[in-house]
This record gives sequence, structure tokens and C-alpha cells, in this order.
Amino acid sequence: MSETSINHDEVDIVIGALQLDLTSFMEEWRPVFSQFHLIIVQDPDLKGKLEIPAGFNFDLYTKSDIDGVLGSSSNAISFSGYSCRYFGYLMSQKKYIIAIDDDCIPAKDSTGNFVDAVAQHMTNLSTPATPFFFNTLYDPFCEGADFVRGYPFSLRSGVDCGLSCGLWLNLADLDAPTQALKPELRNNRYVDTVLTVPARTMMPVSGINIGFNRELVGPALLPAFRLAKEGNLRWETVEDIWTGMCVKVVCDHLRLGVKSGLPYVWRKERGNAIESLKKEWEGVKLMEDVVPFFQSLRLSTSAATAEDCVSEIAAAVKVQLAPANPIFARAAENMVELVKLWKRARTQ
Amino acid sequence: MSETSINHDEVDIVIGALQLDLTSFMEEWRPVFSQFHLIIVQDPDLKGKLEIPAGFNFDLYTKSDIDGVLGSSSNAISFSGYSCRYFGYLMSQKKYIIAIDDDCIPAKDSTGNFVDAVAQHMTNLSTPATPFFFNTLYDPFCEGADFVRGYPFSLRSGVDCGLSCGLWLNLADLDAPTQALKPELRNNRYVDTVLTVPARTMMPVSGINIGFNRELVGPALLPAFRLAKEGNLRWETVEDIWTGMCVKVVCDHLRLGVKSGLPYVWRKERGNAIESLKKEWEGVKLMEDVVPFFQSLRLSTSAATAEDCVSEIAAAVKVQLAPANPIFARAAENMVELVKLWKRARTQ
Repeated sequence: MSETSINHDEVDIVIGALQLDLTSFMEEWRPVFSQFHLIIVQDPDLKGKLEIPAGFNFDLYTKSDIDGVLGSSSNAISFSGYSCRYFGYLMSQKKYIIAIDDDCIPAKDSTGNFVDAVAQHMTNLSTPATPFFFNTLYDPFCEGADFVRGYPFSLRSGVDCGLSCGLWLNLADLDAPTQALKPELRNNRYVDTVLTVPARTMMPVSGINIGFNRELVGPALLPAFRLAKEGNLRWETVEDIWTGMCVKVVCDHLRLGVKSGLPYVWRKERGNAIESLKKEWEGVKLMEDVVPFFQSLRLSTSAATAEDCVSEIAAAVKVQLAPANPIFARAAENMVELVKLWKRARTQ
Repeated sequence: MSETSINHDEVDIVIGALQLDLTSFMEEWRPVFSQFHLIIVQDPDLKGKLEIPAGFNFDLYTKSDIDGVLGSSSNAISFSGYSCRYFGYLMSQKKYIIAIDDDCIPAKDSTGNFVDAVAQHMTNLSTPATPFFFNTLYDPFCEGADFVRGYPFSLRSGVDCGLSCGLWLNLADLDAPTQALKPELRNNRYVDTVLTVPARTMMPVSGINIGFNRELVGPALLPAFRLAKEGNLRWETVEDIWTGMCVKVVCDHLRLGVKSGLPYVWRKERGNAIESLKKEWEGVKLMEDVVPFFQSLRLSTSAATAEDCVSEIAAAVKVQLAPANPIFARAAENMVELVKLWKRARTQ
């Protein structure tokens, strides 16, 4: 599938463990994961000892590691639930990070072959992105593709790719009301492409299956936003949607690209959407304010790094969103705190 | 494929005839084309009588019809070559227009079934578009798809779709230098999706295989832009790239959508890319000015119809682009003249 030559020493695969027994998950991915260094972060709310099969090269982080790093940092910062993966992002020293939810196994492509999600993310991240003009034949750097007639030659060299967002077969990444309304709905459409999401276009990034260039955008991928009653099911969370919009704004500002599409993973069933309907749809409601905010946000020319950008975003959140809802005030504070943690982790 | 119920009386299929013998082309499309009213426009530079097989319901327009309508209009307006199709757009009284180049035949989808391109364009045009936020699972109105987690509910009703841009298998729509550089390159990747091109994102629209809502965006799809040495091969033309950017600006301003993706058509070989390299790459060079112009163009709030918008675009072309190159001055004049022709054709 991919012809990218991967330097394995540049990649960390980060796994947030929300279940104790990772055996079947790890075995499904063994041909891929066994080639790389893994960072496994145990959900600090998950009691017990993880079961991890032999034959993998990994560092494991647990509650005590997290508490040690957090130290006296804001109590509002939480690495529990799906947010535990972000602790792995913070600890990594590699150029690239690939993260895949522990309820996902390799998907099959349209010819029935298993998809090497890591190789595809690395292809996406190591070939240029083209955010300033849309190529109708999608990613021109995919094998067999090119720029179509009318595409300005001056834009064909593209820019570095900061984030690669993969997709999901079987259980799509729907919100609780949609999943509850259409309990039978499964995504079985294999769309064989990658595209650059155009500059200034916002999108709902899912954290289920992503890769990113940690050196370029790492500080934006930290768990600043947490719902009051966040659960341990994907449809009950929006932390990744928030960080995704932060990354997109950062990439747009720094002239980096965000790609979406391949690779797919196969998502297994987890949870009961009807049950989750009993909770408040806090995340769903908040999007009505979050999306227009990020769509209109413009950073100053003095913001030259992802760290600078996140600090500016935090300041804007505080001014524009926080007065309406304390959840945004906390997010702004957390962003400031997390950038400090990020810097500290880099200098140790 | 499509479950859209099509009102056949609302659709004109427009065919620009660049070759005298349309027999094999029409026969390939018979199951589809025979259901609709066709408008066939003979390239006014093409001498002789068209061969059109029996069993189709069509109006044929030739050089004398074109000359009659043009009358004393600007001599600069030309409906020759690929531009002949636009005369059909001008003459149509239907709500929707589908246009397919006469060197294209039905494509097969990934399961080997013939693609009904007209049905897919009608699905694209009659379901909402979502230009204000990108849905990572592509067109949420495709069968089996939906909005993903994080997509604001307030944006889920979408907006009307103005333009549907289909794609090409086999011979991709490349420019002459790319085709000459990679003579063996063929597009064989069937990407099974449709997406809304986000608002404020420009794209190179190809006129090879499109559908549009004539009532909403018709005045923008007229042949205002013509290269000095335009040939009769697709890679030698950019008239559709120009009109495509006009339509996109119009749609963005009027809060309409532009979709891209399915349906595919199969493009047969025509012409010699190496030969075309001997010509000037005028179109390729002009894109360097055309794209930034359209990207930064913003229309006034008083522009309430596509006609208003095109008139404003013409004025901006005259001020911003024309001083650098007389080809733009002519384009601006043509746009003004074509809007007059459009209005006249509507009132007759």
C-alpha cells in the first residue's frame, strides 16, 4: 500500500488502555505494532494490572507516573478515560506519533487485504499537504495520482503535513443521539483516498485513529477540554474534537496541512447508545459555540510555534467563550497549564 | 445507485459535439440519455452534418443558430470548440443541466456495474450540501452515511447544491505538461464518495462531467474566458476552470454548495500530449494570477442573484486583472455581454 520508507526510530505508537486485557487488540495488530516502540498509558481510573502479550517493545505509564508528572499542576487537568493517551503524547520524544483506540483492529481494504494503518499515516505525514487549493483527484501525492488541469504550479510543492486523520469502518464515529436514532447504521463504505482538508476549513477530528508530527503540532494535542459528566464511551466525549480544532487552527496559521481519509480501522462494538442518551448532551450543545469560535479565530503574526499558537488560543477562549460557560474558562486555564507541562517535559 | 426520484422534465442533458459521428458515444449512453431531453450543440468550427442515432429526444443547435443569437453581441464571444456546450446552457429552460464530454462513456464502479452518471449528479444536486464544516465521512446525505460526532446540529440541514462536479477514470484531466511528462499515467482509482467542497476553498472545476442547477447558478456558466491559441483538446483549454471559479465564488456568496466526486465517467484517448507541448502554456501560466484573484474576491451584500454576482466579478476582473493582461480585459467584457445574452434568452 505505502511506499514510504519509514524510519522506525522516529515513531511512537501510543495506546490508551481503557480495558485491562489488551491481548486480542495487540495480537490483531502484532505484525504492525511489533515493528515500533509503543507507549501504553493505562487509564488512571482503571484498577488492576494490564495484560499485554509478550514480544512488544513498550513503555507503560500508570496513575503513579501521571500523578508524578502532574505534581502541583492545576487539579482540573485530567488524563483519565480517553484522555490517558495524551499523557503518552506528552512523554514521547519521537518526531511522529500514531494513536489508535483499543477497540479498533486492522480494517480490510476493498480488495480484502489488511490495512497497515501505521504505514498509511506515515505516508500521509511524510508527503506534502496541499491546503491552499483543492485537488479534485484528492491527494496528488498518492500513488497513481497527480494534480489536475488548472492547479497552479506554484502551489504544487505543498507544505508539511501536521496531522493525519484516519477513518473507521463498521461502527462509525457518530454522536450518541445519531447512534441511538440509527442503531443499525454501520459504515461499510471504503473510500479509497486521502485529501488535504483545505485551509480555514474546520472539521471534527476524531482521536480514534490519528497520526501527527509531534515536533510541529504536539502542544495542540493535549486534553484541555473535558465535559463535566464525560464517560468512557467515545460518543460521550468531545475532548478530541476540541484539540482537533486547535490543531487545525495551528496548522492553518503555521501553513501546515491536515489530511483526512485513509487509513481505516475496524471499530468493534462498545457500549449502548440508548443508555448514553440518558446523559446530558453537553458536548453536542457546546459545539454550537465551539465551532463558530474556531472558524473565526485568527492568530497574530507573532505566534511562530505551536506553543505560541496554543497560548494565543487559550487567551481567546478566555475572552470570547469563558464568560458564557465556566467549562470554557477551565479549558483556557488547562491549555496554559498543559503548555507549561509540555515545555517542562521537553527540557527534562 | 441513486434513490433520488428524478423529474425528467426538469433536466436537459447538454452535449457539445466536437466530432461529427456521435453514434458510438450516444449508443454507450443510450440507457441513460434516452430517458431525457437532450440539447446537442455542434462546434461551429466543425463542418458537416452530425450523425446521431435514432431514438433520442433532442434539439440540435448549429453555427447558424449561434450566429442568430449572438447577433451584434461582442465579437469576442465564441462558442467554438469546447465552448459550444455553453450555448446549450444558454438555450435550456430546464432547472437542471447535466453535461458530459463526447469522448466519455459510462464508467464502471468498483463492483463492475455501469455508473448512471445522470442519476448520481441528480442525487448530488437534489440533496443538501454542507460547505460550512467538513464532514470526515464525506457527504452525509449519501446512502449509509451520516454526520460524525462533533458536527454542529445547526449546520446539519445544509444548503442547496448549485454545482456537482464529476470525475474521470482512465485518462485523468491533467494539463499538457503533466500528461506529456507521464504519458502512461492513467487514473484507475475509484473513490466511492461525494463531498462538499468547503466554502472559500477554490478548486479547478473541469467541464468534462458536471451537473448544475441552472436556475441558481446558470449565469456563471458561460464561456467568458478564452485563450488566444485555444485548441480542441481538453488540456489546451481553461475556459471551464475560469467559469468553475466564478461558480464557486457565486455559490460561496449566495450560501450554496458545490459538490465533487461521484459520478465517474470513462475518458477515452484523444490527442497527443507531446504535440500540445509545442503550444504555449498560456493557460498554465495564467492560473498563477487567476487563482489568487478568485481566492481573495468578496462580493458585496447587494449581489443577491447569480447575475448580480457575475456582474460584480466582471467589474473586479476589469480593475484587478485586466491591467496586467488584455486577455482578462476581454474576459471582463465577455462576462458583461454574456449576462445580457442570458437575460435576453430568459425573456424571449
